[in-house]
Amino acid sequence: MRARLLQVAAQTGTPVYVYDLDEAVRRCQALTETFQGRFGLSYAVKANPNLQLLAGLLPYVDTLDVSSYREVERALLVGCPAERITFSGPAKRAGEVRGAVEQQIGELVLESVAEAELADSAARERGVRQPVLIRINPANGPKKFGVSFSGKASQFGVDEEVLDEAIDRIQQLPGLDLVGFHIYSGTNSLDPEAITQNFAIFIELFRRAAARSGIAPRKLVFGSGFGVPYGAGEQPLDIEAVAATAVPMIDELKRDPTFANARCVLELGRWLVAPAGWLLTGVIAQKHSRGTELRACDAGFNNHLAACGMMGTVIRRNWRFDNISNPQGAPAEYTLVGPLCTSIDVLASKLTLPEVRLGDVIAVENSGAYGLTASPTRFISHPEPAEVLLVGDEIRDATESALNTWTTVDAQGQPRSGTGAG
Amino acid sequence: MRARLLQVAAQTGTPVYVYDLDEAVRRCQALTETFQGRFGLSYAVKANPNLQLLAGLLPYVDTLDVSSYREVERALLVGCPAERITFSGPAKRAGEVRGAVEQQIGELVLESVAEAELADSAARERGVRQPVLIRINPANGPKKFGVSFSGKASQFGVDEEVLDEAIDRIQQLPGLDLVGFHIYSGTNSLDPEAITQNFAIFIELFRRAAARSGIAPRKLVFGSGFGVPYGAGEQPLDIEAVAATAVPMIDELKRDPTFANARCVLELGRWLVAPAGWLLTGVIAQKHSRGTELRACDAGFNNHLAACGMMGTVIRRNWRFDNISNPQGAPAEYTLVGPLCTSIDVLASKLTLPEVRLGDVIAVENSGAYGLTASPTRFISHPEPAEVLLVGDEIRDATESALNTWTTVDAQGQPRSGTGAG
Repeated sequence: MRARLLQVAAQTGTPVYVYDLDEAVRRCQALTETFQGRFGLSYAVKANPNLQLLAGLLPYVDTLDVSSYREVERALLVGCPAERITFSGPAKRAGEVRGAVEQQIGELVLESVAEAELADSAARERGVRQPVLIRINPANGPKKFGVSFSGKASQFGVDEEVLDEAIDRIQQLPGLDLVGFHIYSGTNSLDPEAITQNFAIFIELFRRAAARSGIAPRKLVFGSGFGVPYGAGEQPLDIEAVAATAVPMIDELKRDPTFANARCVLELGRWLVAPAGWLLTGVIAQKHSRGTELRACDAGFNNHLAACGMMGTVIRRNWRFDNISNPQGAPAEYTLVGPLCTSIDVLASKLTLPEVRLGDVIAVENSGAYGLTASPTRFISHPEPAEVLLVGDEIRDATESALNTWTTVDAQGQPRSGTGAG
Repeated sequence: MRARLLQVAAQTGTPVYVYDLDEAVRRCQALTETFQGRFGLSYAVKANPNLQLLAGLLPYVDTLDVSSYREVERALLVGCPAERITFSGPAKRAGEVRGAVEQQIGELVLESVAEAELADSAARERGVRQPVLIRINPANGPKKFGVSFSGKASQFGVDEEVLDEAIDRIQQLPGLDLVGFHIYSGTNSLDPEAITQNFAIFIELFRRAAARSGIAPRKLVFGSGFGVPYGAGEQPLDIEAVAATAVPMIDELKRDPTFANARCVLELGRWLVAPAGWLLTGVIAQKHSRGTELRACDAGFNNHLAACGMMGTVIRRNWRFDNISNPQGAPAEYTLVGPLCTSIDVLASKLTLPEVRLGDVIAVENSGAYGLTASPTRFISHPEPAEVLLVGDEIRDATESALNTWTTVDAQGQPRSGTGAG
């Protein structure tokens, strides 16, 4: 892969984000196979909404899960049928709910009764019944799960403690068609046991919700929480270990006639695309300062907030970096900073890398998720990174200019490119 | 001010950034008066590069200090003469240095000898001498200064320990005209004593640098480090206390004939504009969850990274928030979250505010600096906040669309609006 990435850097310059579509597709396929078809996949668009990547992933997933109306538009723009869109998110604006109903998206993931009422009135106005999933927030989560939002105050979903009342109320709303349930209660776990314990909690809640509602769910969304190894000492998640426990759990659930026809779906973003992406950044300055070898790169937190430890990280750790232009260089310890005129612009502290020279190209690994669009690219007005998609032997420009970032759909719901006015 | 802000929210909707130009100008004037004219002002564009705000501040400052070539272009675009631009930043690309020299900007702030060599060759190619300041990184800083980058490994400037050699080398470069020195070694301090102790360190270094170089500096830039009170218990910086110590220091310095003609300049951004700005966000959802009153706002860390404690903050503290639409409401404790579908999107935790109802407008104070452009506005594709400038009785739309964000200059160095292709 190094040679390929170097070729991209030579062609497009740095900084540049590179997404390997084939690798992302392989990861989709690996999940489907490892879980022996027990799970469909729902790709969380927020992880990486690049249009060409979305289009490439679409054939390998059941649904695109979006979290804003503009993401509905992006999904439509790449040719995703409206019925394959699910829309989750804790603070949907009224206009977003109406828009989603008008587009007749597959399922609206209801985060609250208030949102259900909004959706009901939008659906009745339009004379349709909107398929919905109720998102449940569990009262309990596994102890060892990385970032969990079970059991604490959370903006997400209907708290388990008030689930029964919420189901009752939502089922009274004639504009809504309750087709199933959704739980996403934790993220970025590398522990198979914690993940399957979490699934067991989901299943218990799904059973309880189905019993209360009296429906035979057609869909159950399992928020995967599958993590990727950002830190140096971490190992990739053992998905075979997850499957070994999860597959029998699903089989048991589906032996219950209530769930025989339920489509179980894994919702995930990070695990699918993070390891299929790199940010390539060039070394543009060097300085020996007070015992530290500093190297300044042309990408900083303006281009990759998460890699700089500024996206929800409590204790900052170095991500994985590779000096792809000098992999055989003598190892030494470096602090990598970005180009921004602020002392907080640090990519990595005291990291051992093969000798880093001016002009070298550094690859930031695991950058396919929560990279470009999760970064403050306008800060200090540096040029934006290009985006490139690797497909077979091809290196495809996948950059979205400031112009085509803004997309819209016409009155008939047909996608079209915008002109900045959208 | 509440009434004015409510009027803006009613006119433009939320989220919206509001900048009070008159207040920013008053702050410029207050500094100039309090320091009895001893200091000119240099506005750090990165704090807030809004074009209309820049244009409005221009008459009240000596220079615009920029940190990227695109910021050079922004300064030119608002009518700033090139000679009133200074360009600092630790990792200027070769093309940026060349561009700045071609524009004949006032001073290039040299962060290293290597950068000096780049500038020298650009200047000689063009047959000009580029005025430069050497940025010095002190070996010592005051103990109580907030965020200081003195005395540690830093990408900024020439370390004091190697200053003599750097001066010697830079003075050998025929394309450069050494006109003075620049120090910015710490930020966001609220302690007048720490600030003036820092100035004393600057002055000692300026004296040493002048002696080594044999020049009578025409300019000395004092990085102010003036902070603003973000936390609830903090008091504004007492600038009169700073002036009481600093003015005699400057007077003493200027009694030295070497410094008699030196223009002393305070470089600052945050102090001037942060308190003159607000982010207004609307309350779009509410939830009582496990003992906590949650309110979801239409702005999250996508719109204001710093207010969410995600911009270099080690220990997260609540910023100052005001429920401007219900200031007389009964106080209660709230957690304010943003609209993003991620658990890290928290504006404030367990904050006491007058009753927060659906539809209320919350003002995030101190938002005039490091707000919109320092935030990942593309994350989850929510609509961007508008920007509004208050000038006298006028409420002026100051939004930069995706289109006019991209500005450029023509081959003759004349500013022009771009079309996204710049």
